[in-house]
Amino acid sequence: MNDDTRQLLENVRDGKISVEEAVLKLKVKPFEDIGYAKVDTHRTLRQGAAEVIYGAGKTPEQIAGIADAMLRNGQETILITRLSDGSAQEVQKAHPLRYEKNARCGIIGPVPEPDGIGKIVVATGGTSDIPVAEEAAVTASVLGSEVVRLYDVGVAGLHRTLSHLDDIMNASVIIAVAGMEGALTSVIGGLADCPVIGVPTSVGYGASFNGLSALLAMLNSCASGVSVVNIDNGFGAGFLADRINHMNRKREG
Amino acid sequence: MNDDTRQLLENVRDGKISVEEAVLKLKVKPFEDIGYAKVDTHRTLRQGAAEVIYGAGKTPEQIAGIADAMLRNGQETILITRLSDGSAQEVQKAHPLRYEKNARCGIIGPVPEPDGIGKIVVATGGTSDIPVAEEAAVTASVLGSEVVRLYDVGVAGLHRTLSHLDDIMNASVIIAVAGMEGALTSVIGGLADCPVIGVPTSVGYGASFNGLSALLAMLNSCASGVSVVNIDNGFGAGFLADRINHMNRKREG
Amino acid sequence: MNDDTRQLLENVRDGKISVEEAVLKLKVKPFEDIGYAKVDTHRTLRQGAAEVIYGAGKTPEQIAGIADAMLRNGQETILITRLSDGSAQEVQKAHPLRYEKNARCGIIGPVPEPDGIGKIVVATGGTSDIPVAEEAAVTASVLGSEVVRLYDVGVAGLHRTLSHLDDIMNASVIIAVAGMEGALTSVIGGLADCPVIGVPTSVGYGASFNGLSALLAMLNSCASGVSVVNIDNGFGAGFLADRINHMNRKREG
Amino acid sequence: MNDDTRQLLENVRDGKISVEEAVLKLKVKPFEDIGYAKVDTHRTLRQGAAEVIYGAGKTPEQIAGIADAMLRNGQETILITRLSDGSAQEVQKAHPLRYEKNARCGIIGPVPEPDGIGKIVVATGGTSDIPVAEEAAVTASVLGSEVVRLYDVGVAGLHRTLSHLDDIMNASVIIAVAGMEGALTSVIGGLADCPVIGVPTSVGYGASFNGLSALLAMLNSCASGVSVVNIDNGFGAGFLADRINHMNRKREG
Amino acid sequence: MNDDTRQLLENVRDGKISVEEAVLKLKVKPFEDIGYAKVDTHRTLRQGAAEVIYGAGKTPEQIAGIADAMLRNGQETILITRLSDGSAQEVQKAHPLRYEKNARCGIIGPVPEPDGIGKIVVATGGTSDIPVAEEAAVTASVLGSEVVRLYDVGVAGLHRTLSHLDDIMNASVIIAVAGMEGALTSVIGGLADCPVIGVPTSVGYGASFNGLSALLAMLNSCASGVSVVNIDNGFGAGFLADRINHMNRKREG
Amino acid sequence: MNDDTRQLLENVRDGKISVEEAVLKLKVKPFEDIGYAKVDTHRTLRQGAAEVIYGAGKTPEQIAGIADAMLRNGQETILITRLSDGSAQEVQKAHPLRYEKNARCGIIGPVPEPDGIGKIVVATGGTSDIPVAEEAAVTASVLGSEVVRLYDVGVAGLHRTLSHLDDIMNASVIIAVAGMEGALTSVIGGLADCPVIGVPTSVGYGASFNGLSALLAMLNSCASGVSVVNIDNGFGAGFLADRINHMNRKREG
Amino acid sequence: MNDDTRQLLENVRDGKISVEEAVLKLKVKPFEDIGYAKVDTHRTLRQGAAEVIYGAGKTPEQIAGIADAMLRNGQETILITRLSDGSAQEVQKAHPLRYEKNARCGIIGPVPEPDGIGKIVVATGGTSDIPVAEEAAVTASVLGSEVVRLYDVGVAGLHRTLSHLDDIMNASVIIAVAGMEGALTSVIGGLADCPVIGVPTSVGYGASFNGLSALLAMLNSCASGVSVVNIDNGFGAGFLADRINHMNRKREG
Amino acid sequence: MNDDTRQLLENVRDGKISVEEAVLKLKVKPFEDIGYAKVDTHRTLRQGAAEVIYGAGKTPEQIAGIADAMLRNGQETILITRLSDGSAQEVQKAHPLRYEKNARCGIIGPVPEPDGIGKIVVATGGTSDIPVAEEAAVTASVLGSEVVRLYDVGVAGLHRTLSHLDDIMNASVIIAVAGMEGALTSVIGGLADCPVIGVPTSVGYGASFNGLSALLAMLNSCASGVSVVNIDNGFGAGFLADRINHMNRKREG
Repeated sequence: MNDDTRQLLENVRDGKISVEEAVLKLKVKPFEDIGYAKVDTHRTLRQGAAEVIYGAGKTPEQIAGIADAMLRNGQETILITRLSDGSAQEVQKAHPLRYEKNARCGIIGPVPEPDGIGKIVVATGGTSDIPVAEEAAVTASVLGSEVVRLYDVGVAGLHRTLSHLDDIMNASVIIAVAGMEGALTSVIGGLADCPVIGVPTSVGYGASFNGLSALLAMLNSCASGVSVVNIDNGFGAGFLADRINHMNRKREG
Repeated sequence: MNDDTRQLLENVRDGKISVEEAVLKLKVKPFEDIGYAKVDTHRTLRQGAAEVIYGAGKTPEQIAGIADAMLRNGQETILITRLSDGSAQEVQKAHPLRYEKNARCGIIGPVPEPDGIGKIVVATGGTSDIPVAEEAAVTASVLGSEVVRLYDVGVAGLHRTLSHLDDIMNASVIIAVAGMEGALTSVIGGLADCPVIGVPTSVGYGASFNGLSALLAMLNSCASGVSVVNIDNGFGAGFLADRINHMNRKREG
Repeated sequence: MNDDTRQLLENVRDGKISVEEAVLKLKVKPFEDIGYAKVDTHRTLRQGAAEVIYGAGKTPEQIAGIADAMLRNGQETILITRLSDGSAQEVQKAHPLRYEKNARCGIIGPVPEPDGIGKIVVATGGTSDIPVAEEAAVTASVLGSEVVRLYDVGVAGLHRTLSHLDDIMNASVIIAVAGMEGALTSVIGGLADCPVIGVPTSVGYGASFNGLSALLAMLNSCASGVSVVNIDNGFGAGFLADRINHMNRKREG
Repeated sequence: MNDDTRQLLENVRDGKISVEEAVLKLKVKPFEDIGYAKVDTHRTLRQGAAEVIYGAGKTPEQIAGIADAMLRNGQETILITRLSDGSAQEVQKAHPLRYEKNARCGIIGPVPEPDGIGKIVVATGGTSDIPVAEEAAVTASVLGSEVVRLYDVGVAGLHRTLSHLDDIMNASVIIAVAGMEGALTSVIGGLADCPVIGVPTSVGYGASFNGLSALLAMLNSCASGVSVVNIDNGFGAGFLADRINHMNRKREG
Repeated sequence: MNDDTRQLLENVRDGKISVEEAVLKLKVKPFEDIGYAKVDTHRTLRQGAAEVIYGAGKTPEQIAGIADAMLRNGQETILITRLSDGSAQEVQKAHPLRYEKNARCGIIGPVPEPDGIGKIVVATGGTSDIPVAEEAAVTASVLGSEVVRLYDVGVAGLHRTLSHLDDIMNASVIIAVAGMEGALTSVIGGLADCPVIGVPTSVGYGASFNGLSALLAMLNSCASGVSVVNIDNGFGAGFLADRINHMNRKREG
Repeated sequence: MNDDTRQLLENVRDGKISVEEAVLKLKVKPFEDIGYAKVDTHRTLRQGAAEVIYGAGKTPEQIAGIADAMLRNGQETILITRLSDGSAQEVQKAHPLRYEKNARCGIIGPVPEPDGIGKIVVATGGTSDIPVAEEAAVTASVLGSEVVRLYDVGVAGLHRTLSHLDDIMNASVIIAVAGMEGALTSVIGGLADCPVIGVPTSVGYGASFNGLSALLAMLNSCASGVSVVNIDNGFGAGFLADRINHMNRKREG
Repeated sequence: MNDDTRQLLENVRDGKISVEEAVLKLKVKPFEDIGYAKVDTHRTLRQGAAEVIYGAGKTPEQIAGIADAMLRNGQETILITRLSDGSAQEVQKAHPLRYEKNARCGIIGPVPEPDGIGKIVVATGGTSDIPVAEEAAVTASVLGSEVVRLYDVGVAGLHRTLSHLDDIMNASVIIAVAGMEGALTSVIGGLADCPVIGVPTSVGYGASFNGLSALLAMLNSCASGVSVVNIDNGFGAGFLADRINHMNRKREG
Repeated sequence: MNDDTRQLLENVRDGKISVEEAVLKLKVKPFEDIGYAKVDTHRTLRQGAAEVIYGAGKTPEQIAGIADAMLRNGQETILITRLSDGSAQEVQKAHPLRYEKNARCGIIGPVPEPDGIGKIVVATGGTSDIPVAEEAAVTASVLGSEVVRLYDVGVAGLHRTLSHLDDIMNASVIIAVAGMEGALTSVIGGLADCPVIGVPTSVGYGASFNGLSALLAMLNSCASGVSVVNIDNGFGAGFLADRINHMNRKREG
């Protein structure tokens, strides 16, 4: 319900347009308004934050084109996820893009200064989980959160997990990335007192069933304060973690 | 690492106990310390919040006994989840318990004044999802969050969802509870700009496979900012929502 | 976008209410309008058709109350599905309800004269599938379609299927209800030249996995013109079949 | 039971063939008759409509040969589905084939003037679902239906869906094509008052399990009037939608 | 194509009925004829064999009624499967029924003298598999096969299996009934040189998933000559084993 | 228990070897004896029949070597299954092998004259099922059975199935090969009075789940006399069908 | 190959029985011999250990009868698993049976003095897992192992697990019993240097799918030295743990 | 709790560092200590045993680097699993590595003299299971166990299994490796009196579902003393078998 609607009503009041015309315009508009309204609010709250392009299934030309449009509209920072090395090189011909190889992400424009409530910890069970974790970490960084990486702290070597107890207990949000048996989420969920986001990965073989094992384990976590996103969905976890880490905007807003 | 450890070290310094004795005590203690430390921090941060007893599989006597111990330790408010009507009546003989029938929860002691960042919206797709939603709502309330209930706003009657757009767009956290196709989470996730927690329910029949259908749908939500808890896990969603809604404590703490 | 909106705009035009007030009212209304608009269209098109109450999980008192409200609003015919024998007897104390035991359905008010394009054939593979088939048949009848029942014409006794070839080839829509291997849908789909709706049932044991076997078979039907609804969802099939059988309204409307 | 049978009986009556010979001929024939009878009826009802060749697993030579035979039998329009770009180029050497790349379909001969009851809306949740949607759209067009395409109107951006409310509410049949959580079918099913055909797609990753997630969601849709076809089965949906959109032939026939 | 058809043709030849009438009669009949023809052939081949009533989901009255009709039609022996003890007692009031408690089968009339090629061995892995095995054994016996029972010869005690090597190597057909890991089928399939029918049972717990484990194991048997029926389908195995054991009729017939 | 054992005992009786030596020899032998005994029986019964080499995962050299050994041992006919075109060409350098491309089988030596009870019918639902069907047909032929092929007689075009009613009703054994919904097995099982072996194939897409759909449908067949082998297991079905078709050997043996 | 065989051979040597008779006896015996041989070895190695009766599906009379036979054969100690309270009371009328209610086990006779290599630790994640753990613990005790119980040491409260580090690091074998996410096995597997046996339990709800979640997690454990038994199979774990704990007998034997 | 801790305490006692400093150091250390402590114990117990590098997902450079570090730390023998032929050749440029092609393992340094309790038998059902079996065998050998290989002794040719009865009955531990129906584990588990570790393999097709069939069969084994590791996890089985075979260290340690 934005200024256009008010303008329309004032035009009706002032007899500038007929009731019939107004009915027609209102029939089409409100649903567009919802969208715009949401975008507006969003923009007000998150000034300077990055827009995101989901790169999978898009050609370098399409990605460059979308980025172009965003930049023309005043967007300063753009995050491109699921971007292959080859595509990145193509996009770089059109835009000054920094490519984060591990995360398979490209970034155009400056990364904002972190202004969240605290630090987001991104932890992985093993080294094979790192690409998913990096997608989460880069996403949260580009959206304006400070990120601490704790990689290869799987529960089979519990001393590795515990040697980072300070980071875990001081985190604002924790993203626990693990394949195989996915136990990391429960162990961290039991140690931390902040929201924990489990990201099951497709790392493993045999009865890991491409991440199903880790997914089910995380859903059944006996630790409180834990929720789960899709298998290998590093972006989703990073986005949500940043949103929680920026709950301060909610209050101030 | 609490006062006991410091006391132990002071005793070593002061020659009150031998190094050997200290080694032995330290060998056993640190792991207990982690627990106590955590409980301490927790207590400092969340003064006045409720302790929780998971009622399923416990006899009324056991529940009453645990509550007794908590109360003796100074706990003011206790939440008992998965509590049957019959068990509640038994526990009421020992404690002044209020029973929330829909939520299958019992509460001992005062419910704290809400002091979170904003309001937690608990929405359901249908009326059959209400017991799970109530478990979430009561949990969040007892932990100190204000809760708005939007029940029976399933996406097949989209006008019902949209008629509550204000609540959805102003929420601090949203818990979307739905069985069957679980689409509510995606629709709300697309409208809201706060964290959304999906709770799949076992409501449905046939190919709902006891909640599997809703669970998969929510995990695959195309909306950003969504995460998922176990099927029918109202408590988990309420607990997490409250934790997010109290991110202000993180900053102040 | 109904008369209320037009009235509101006329009031703005006539200066009866301020623009501010109108903005507020419009902010809340349009989403309700969608609903009402849909209901209106629906009512115009389907004058006299039944409203439906899903009886599962509702008390007899709730059902009677909802029916009461519908009747007060001028609804002549009401269909209540998933209604147990016991509940039906309770509802009968408040309303003159006819109970169709096999279909587990109750009907209040007159069943309309059939006015669809043709006849809806409801076929079952075996006798155990009849309750689901009856739910479909009663639903379609009460909504205004003529129904032909072909029960126990499973493909293992193909002569039974083929002895009803005339009914199959002259049908307007066919609902094929089958458990176990669900082959009925393919055989009928291959013989008929009208839309065929497959309803897998949970009839069977062992590797039927409560209807999964029939569901998968129907989804993989090699016959064209076949679609599928949820396991045991007789109502859904009957409702959809009637909607297709009343495509004449679309043209006239 | 066609003219051949009548001729046979007349020959028996006239003593031209013995009863023994007639018994033998009848033993073999009736089942062939069913087939021919069906083809005949079909042809009478749907004069001018396209025949379909399922291209998957056929060599370009086989496809060209089948098309050849059809054309020699007087068929004017032929649709070839699941046709790769390379195969299309081979077939084009033998026939003047138009290749619809997105739909992976080839068309030989003129596309008939639309003569159905109304318009078929083909909607997709995202851009990755477009190939499946195009298969449906091209199929329905070639069979004689007018098609309206609403692509990328997924529920996470509800304003996009709602901005096409007119198309949705005026459609004759709607094909809702979506992967991931498949919520589009429920949202559209709740808005429309025509038959809605859900087509789950294999678009997604992780817990989408190659379309299982969308399939289950659509089968459990809480909206009435919805049915489902196999994962990625654009052809099946287009064929069925056209059949429903040509229910007027049923009445006239 | 039975005598009725010949009679009809003779009537046409003799001018007793018109060609028009004959066309009408033939339009309806042939499909019935298929059925009758099959029943006739069946009866000729298997004179004296039992008819079968599937008792599950039928009332004692229905069972007694069907049996009554069969007996009036000259059937001497009737097998009733899935018959509960209580139902059996009811049926016994109307017919002299012998109840085989373990097999949950009732038999009316004499059991025919065995006249098959050889002996059917029914083997079980454990004692809990016996009810399913008995259903198979009683079925094969009543249909006219000699049955040898080898119960509790599971592979974990291989000496038990091997101590019956003579029976296994001399069998005409073997039915291997096993739950849990279903290995019995492979071991027997490796020892025998006759057809082996695996019957997975729902015996087990946990990861037996109600017979899925045994079903998959039997389908993957590395032994040649093995096929599988549905979980707990003793009747199906007994029927098929008898059919194979009566292949001598094929040659003689 | 072969002549060697008797010889051993005679040697003991005659004092040619000590009891100690005999104990040692007997400790090792009986288990070998089982194997040899079985091979012997087998050879006596099935003189002239083919030996089989499972080609998958074996190099052409290994296959040629095994065939060599078999031929040296007097085997006249050898069947090699799952043999790629390339491997066949390699093996042909060493042996005069005929390669059946559709069946992916190679044959060395003469195919025996059919001497079974009757004809084995191999039927397929569609043309894509033919490779699996050919594996079955070639296997049964090489083992000494006459085979009738009925391809592309799927149930969606029932007249195609029924036009081969004579073949179906006169068959000795029927192998029904079908993917997708696997209904062919039930339809044929309902028409035939001989053993029917269902072979689910991985033909299909989406919810066919690589043959799971057809497998479950066949296991749940409502027709009696049906059993099932593993997905795509043409060899297993052909081997079993031949064994049943040679039940005459059992009697004569 | 026991004394009977030697005796038989001596009788052949001494001319007491003919070669023919010996051939016949040997044809039947060796397979029995395998069994007896095994039992003998077993008895020698494990003198005094308990025999086990699996109580599920057996009547109290059957259990008492089997126990009777065992006792008459000199067995001193008998373990009866899966024994209900009611059945235990019945068996107690015949034998002096001690009933372990939590473990659902009955014991007849003395429990042997522990003589294994070390202590078997039985740990559970929660209190609901205790019945399965007790079945394991009682089994291992009755077979002659010393057992240490660590109950409710789930990983969400890691300090509880770690406070028992000494027990874990000194154990001979560890049985880790857990439902839900089954992470206990990995955590303990990472801390211990002895064999760890995971027992998934059906404790949990929703996406625990009756123990599937814990089962998959344990199978995918990233800790070395871990293996898994069936869901809820406490007996199997206890039996195996005792066998490993008595590897000293292997050396001495 | 190592010397560092004692030193720290002595420093506190001696006043060399303050209590505050000690508190800080202790806060970080104990968790590291757990790790070191475990490594120490491990080293004492298993002097000379190999360290293991999991090669999958590591570059040859990474592998060579890790090996380098291990060798510099005094490790004599290193096992590298899941090592491709190509990677092995790269690593060989840096280290004198022996490559076991079948096992896909590389070994640096001497293989220790076997010093376990007895022999570990590694048995496979078929020849395709050999790579997984070799991974197990090489692992156990390199860790210091003597290994006996029994390959291709699948249960469909039981005489092959039984001809190795001596090996089976004398084994210290048995690793049973099998795909398809996985029956080998049960048969061997029934014959042996030592711990049996089942390794399901992904060998098979169709309903083997990449090893699920064998996995479920092994979990449901009716033989006592059996446990299971992940599909294709030869290393896990070899490691665990060696640990059990070195239980003598436990006693001596």
